[in-house]
Amino acid sequence: MGFLRKLNAAQAKSDSLLCVGLDPDFEKLPKALRDSDTPLFDFNKAIIDATAGLVCAFKPNTAFYESRGAEGIEELKRTCDYIREEYPDIPIIVDLKRADIGNTNKHYATFAFDYLGADAVTVHPWLGREAVQPFLDYKDKGIIVLCRTSNDGAGEFQDLQAERLPIYMHVAKNVSKKWNANGNCLLVVGATYPEEIARVRRQVGDKMVFLVPGLGAQGGDAEAVIKAGTNRAGRGLIINSARAILYASSGDDFAEAARAKAVATRDKINEYR
Amino acid sequence: MGFLRKLNAAQAKSDSLLCVGLDPDFEKLPKALRDSDTPLFDFNKAIIDATAGLVCAFKPNTAFYESRGAEGIEELKRTCDYIREEYPDIPIIVDLKRADIGNTNKHYATFAFDYLGADAVTVHPWLGREAVQPFLDYKDKGIIVLCRTSNDGAGEFQDLQAERLPIYMHVAKNVSKKWNANGNCLLVVGATYPEEIARVRRQVGDKMVFLVPGLGAQGGDAEAVIKAGTNRAGRGLIINSARAILYASSGDDFAEAARAKAVATRDKINEYR
Repeated sequence: MGFLRKLNAAQAKSDSLLCVGLDPDFEKLPKALRDSDTPLFDFNKAIIDATAGLVCAFKPNTAFYESRGAEGIEELKRTCDYIREEYPDIPIIVDLKRADIGNTNKHYATFAFDYLGADAVTVHPWLGREAVQPFLDYKDKGIIVLCRTSNDGAGEFQDLQAERLPIYMHVAKNVSKKWNANGNCLLVVGATYPEEIARVRRQVGDKMVFLVPGLGAQGGDAEAVIKAGTNRAGRGLIINSARAILYASSGDDFAEAARAKAVATRDKINEYR
Repeated sequence: MGFLRKLNAAQAKSDSLLCVGLDPDFEKLPKALRDSDTPLFDFNKAIIDATAGLVCAFKPNTAFYESRGAEGIEELKRTCDYIREEYPDIPIIVDLKRADIGNTNKHYATFAFDYLGADAVTVHPWLGREAVQPFLDYKDKGIIVLCRTSNDGAGEFQDLQAERLPIYMHVAKNVSKKWNANGNCLLVVGATYPEEIARVRRQVGDKMVFLVPGLGAQGGDAEAVIKAGTNRAGRGLIINSARAILYASSGDDFAEAARAKAVATRDKINEYR
């Protein structure tokens, strides 16, 4: 089953647009877990089990695993395997933000899709469609292109105006018109920029799904995001939260606290849909 | 010692601007190596030993290791360790082309600098300086920003004109004027675009070093690159070649063939300096 159908089914089943970012920062894990041989996986497993009924996707970011070296990558793989085995209906978005020339991207795609078993990945737009084609060729996988990112300094190049459009709008336009021959493209638009979300939505129409990071720790507002970004069916968004949920408590009750925060976030999102 | 001093010393010692890209594609390795427990490392070791006297840097690209999973990352680390131990004067550029928000980039920097022991890394410009700051804060490391890439479709966004300058020139300008407070920034400019190399050189002045991929398999021309990109001292470039050297022969003589090709490439570059 293709990524978008899997996502739609998961959103319907959980009645949720919430995605939990599995970004385990070793230094922030509860003390008891830091002595484990597989601290990242143990933490993730508890978070996954506590929030699986509340989410439409899980999104591990590779950086938090790579900083632990080869063992970290092993824990990332175990995390993906665990989700696939225990919660096969929940899509896995591997947030790797890669992009290289085409011959090299084939290897990144092998890492994400064949080794980790990801349902979707994030990619940088900088090298253009021709370079990203090896990702796009995976018709059943979601290819999520960084359009307008959530960080404070996102505008340095993304907001430059070319032909009366900011560059991030050129990305939105090209991805929806030229990259999406397989119907498997999505866009990243940060929760911290609701006006930009609305503008991208107007550009690409109702069908394309946005991955929206930046709710929670980065300060994005659920109401503004929903009003700016949902399509007419009240969907079209994957709203990610990581730190606010993962570290809702630093004690032994971290999984319960994460669940409570995930319930509250899902409900807040649904209030405005 | 900082990256740029180490690079200068290595360029002087080897009389070479050549960088060998350590991009071992498992499917292309000589048959005998494919049965090894550490095929990528064994291949790299032979290439490194054969070419160490001829290069100013080695540049492993993470994609070729990630496609082999956690074991591949282990082989990447062994490769970096081997260079550092046996050839401590040769800088290691880890070509990872990452960029995420600041909090996440800290983890990628830990991977590259603390785990792998890289002397320099490549990063995407898309999220702007504010996001890349955790990399830039490593004063003694080289931060190499993708300015104008070597691929056919590079121009899709890089060539868009804003304020009468293509976006890649905004990257060149901002990196040289705003990102480079620690004097540790470099730029990627593809060998396949000598006019763009010359234009970027005029913009950023004599001091900044360019990493130039795309010689060899991608079709870049040594003479054009040298004429467009060297500074007045006949340096200022790191010219990368990977496939043309790594796969000069597919037989048991691959290391000798790689050496011969590296000699020829170094000499051809030096002919025009």
